[in-house]
Amino acid sequence: MQVEIRSPYLLFLGDEPERSHAKTAVGIAHWRSELCVGQLRLPGSGVDLGLPDLTAAQAADAGARSLIWGVAGVGGIIPPHWIDTLFDAVAAGLDIVAGTHSSLSKIPGLADAAAKAGVRLVDIRRPPEGLPVGNGQKRSGKRLLMVGTDCVVGKKYSALSIAKEMSERGMKADFRATGQTGIMIAGGGMPIDAVVSDFVSGAAEVLSPDNDADHWDVIEGQGSLYHPGYAAVTLGLMHGSQPDAFIVCHEAGRTMIEAFPGFPLPTISELIELTVATGRLTNPEIRCAGISVNTSRLSAAERADYLAKIQDDSGLPCVDPIATGVGPLVDFIVDTF
Amino acid sequence: MQVEIRSPYLLFLGDEPERSHAKTAVGIAHWRSELCVGQLRLPGSGVDLGLPDLTAAQAADAGARSLIWGVAGVGGIIPPHWIDTLFDAVAAGLDIVAGTHSSLSKIPGLADAAAKAGVRLVDIRRPPEGLPVGNGQKRSGKRLLMVGTDCVVGKKYSALSIAKEMSERGMKADFRATGQTGIMIAGGGMPIDAVVSDFVSGAAEVLSPDNDADHWDVIEGQGSLYHPGYAAVTLGLMHGSQPDAFIVCHEAGRTMIEAFPGFPLPTISELIELTVATGRLTNPEIRCAGISVNTSRLSAAERADYLAKIQDDSGLPCVDPIATGVGPLVDFIVDTF
Repeated sequence: MQVEIRSPYLLFLGDEPERSHAKTAVGIAHWRSELCVGQLRLPGSGVDLGLPDLTAAQAADAGARSLIWGVAGVGGIIPPHWIDTLFDAVAAGLDIVAGTHSSLSKIPGLADAAAKAGVRLVDIRRPPEGLPVGNGQKRSGKRLLMVGTDCVVGKKYSALSIAKEMSERGMKADFRATGQTGIMIAGGGMPIDAVVSDFVSGAAEVLSPDNDADHWDVIEGQGSLYHPGYAAVTLGLMHGSQPDAFIVCHEAGRTMIEAFPGFPLPTISELIELTVATGRLTNPEIRCAGISVNTSRLSAAERADYLAKIQDDSGLPCVDPIATGVGPLVDFIVDTF
Repeated sequence: MQVEIRSPYLLFLGDEPERSHAKTAVGIAHWRSELCVGQLRLPGSGVDLGLPDLTAAQAADAGARSLIWGVAGVGGIIPPHWIDTLFDAVAAGLDIVAGTHSSLSKIPGLADAAAKAGVRLVDIRRPPEGLPVGNGQKRSGKRLLMVGTDCVVGKKYSALSIAKEMSERGMKADFRATGQTGIMIAGGGMPIDAVVSDFVSGAAEVLSPDNDADHWDVIEGQGSLYHPGYAAVTLGLMHGSQPDAFIVCHEAGRTMIEAFPGFPLPTISELIELTVATGRLTNPEIRCAGISVNTSRLSAAERADYLAKIQDDSGLPCVDPIATGVGPLVDFIVDTF
């Protein structure tokens, strides 16, 4: 009942000049290069993912099943000179997979062409039909949830890093995606913030079903319990995930909720306390398993001090997933759970 | 941007034999009799609201603007012998207003007939388009939110009673509806549990806009922070409502979340504590203003002891809105805020 994407992928970059606007494609190429047969760029593109440049037909010949919309929408409007490529992709037998502002079905004729070709226009912002209300019943297997002091503090990156580290150690682990880019990287997942509020915890239950007792679902978080706009999403995701453990994700130097004036970030200990107070409803054993900080604004010396202080204060491992890696978090999880 | 219903109303009861299945109509007739020009019953009906029996045309002549679907859906299917009445209503110039399981737009020809007659088929389960993300910015006026130990513990009844009591005392007060029946009683509101989770707190902000400094919005609650399926709805409604005060609603004798095995009800003090801990995000001054208990399962003697004990334990007024009235709650609010 989750959103599902067929792989392998052809990553579509249009003629986007800025790499920073191609974060989805960059993320997929970084985390799942084995799924990517190539990139499709139009004249003027300023982004190179280091993948073979292929047309839709060439990609289909190479086995691709989906054209992945890898760039941010331009104010919701699809550039007219990109549209031929979308028809080419459909004609070549590729699904087209897109998220924010895609409006694929509004391109005249594209839906018909897709139906005729037997391919799908997949809007990964659209939740599956028929999601249940969460029932709170305990599922088998173990779950690790990312929780944030704010949005955009590295929850997805932390979850992907931890799932990768677990897999490399031979542990049973799956990354579970809850946002657009994560869903494209994982090849499936649940666009949790687009789910009707009555079904949010149920959608989270669907995302991490029963599993082996020693299997970890590593679940991408959303929002923050301290976010005035999105805390309801965060709480529903947590109740449905019934995490055994959670990782606090944070960006060093951030003091206020981004774009929400007047809302200070919680301290890490405040966030741990409220997460346990609310999360124990569906998992009385919930506990924090460490802190993952984006310290890119700090110097190397500052970083070491910063991470050491949090580690001392909390008594929990504290890492930067890029600078130090997430090994200490996984060590703690292996030792503790 | 809220759901809006045109009054006065004709209450449609079909041939429903059971008064208990006509709770919506009973509630509207009880709370807003001044809005009801009549009832429309088919042969076999077992419900009498004490209103004049009118056809759609007669009701329209008497000024009615909306036919209100006043009974629960029968497994989602509209009885075929009710359908002629719906066409009659549209032809008479009445909107048709319905909630759960109505599927009005699926009745062949009804949508066309409504368009031709210039009337609306209003599904009060459908949230308005274009709801914003909550911004958490403080609004003027005062807000009182019902919070529950569970669903169906008297939140709507308590809110309606308090708003009525305030109005009768000459205070400025409005009941703000968040569920289907409440929306029909209020003539508008927000079906909060049907809102996409990203916009729940924003929808609650829209529901109780800026108002006079001495005006109270008395907001119907939804779900419970201790409900494994619906707590996200509860939290988003609270963050958007930014209540100055809240009333704990409870049913005496209930010990478990209804239909969710394994989930005990919180104690009243636990619920107060978690409500303050989470609600202070958007209103740091949030505090409990009393407890409203449905004691219908208790004898009169038991009731007095029960309410007195909660009042002693909490130091807050504790009432049964039916048996004792909500006067002490409003007294406390007047004295405190």
